[in-house]
Amino acid sequence: MTAAIQGHCIEDLTIGQSASYSRTITEADIQQFGAVSGDLNPLHFDEEYARTTLFKGRIAHGMLSASFLSTVLGTQLPGAGSIFLSATIRFKAPVRIGDTVVATCAVREINLQR
Amino acid sequence: MTAAIQGHCIEDLTIGQSASYSRTITEADIQQFGAVSGDLNPLHFDEEYARTTLFKGRIAHGMLSASFLSTVLGTQLPGAGSIFLSATIRFKAPVRIGDTVVATCAVREINLQR
Repeated sequence: MTAAIQGHCIEDLTIGQSASYSRTITEADIQQFGAVSGDLNPLHFDEEYARTTLFKGRIAHGMLSASFLSTVLGTQLPGAGSIFLSATIRFKAPVRIGDTVVATCAVREINLQR
Repeated sequence: MTAAIQGHCIEDLTIGQSASYSRTITEADIQQFGAVSGDLNPLHFDEEYARTTLFKGRIAHGMLSASFLSTVLGTQLPGAGSIFLSATIRFKAPVRIGDTVVATCAVREINLQR
């Protein structure tokens, strides 16, 4: 794979600039995320079990949605070569198969000295 | 899949109790995490490009390691049915293919009233 994904230099960024990644969650996504993370919590895989919980049915892994933030940062804004240093995440509502998750990143501050 | 993963009731937990999930990162893990997250940042996939960066070579997705925390919570402690409500994550060092990541969760506080 070649570095076809372009990155922005810090000088090219402006306050308020934003980018999004949108993805509709599928059964395959949950299976694949379970395999790669080892998280086989039945809340994600077992409909019968999940119906007995607060969530009333299967939900997607929260970290799957959280990973889309990394996708925006690493492929769009700032793009190639960018990396998460830290993240504070609150999971506010369950995501189910067929739901579309939109991850949006915006430039809030630019620190040219670092 | 059946709910073979057992969960602990809050009454069964004790302060200091802990559990871990350990995984050695492979090329396939990075490919699979890239596919499921859409994060195709060349820092994770293009060795030639990654060598030109601060990291001096390809690194795994940080959110892949972070997802192992969810794995411990959802499959071991407390186990089945448990779900992340929030997470604060600092990525302190790069993870490369062949590195073993150990995610450990410990009980710090028990709130029976919630």
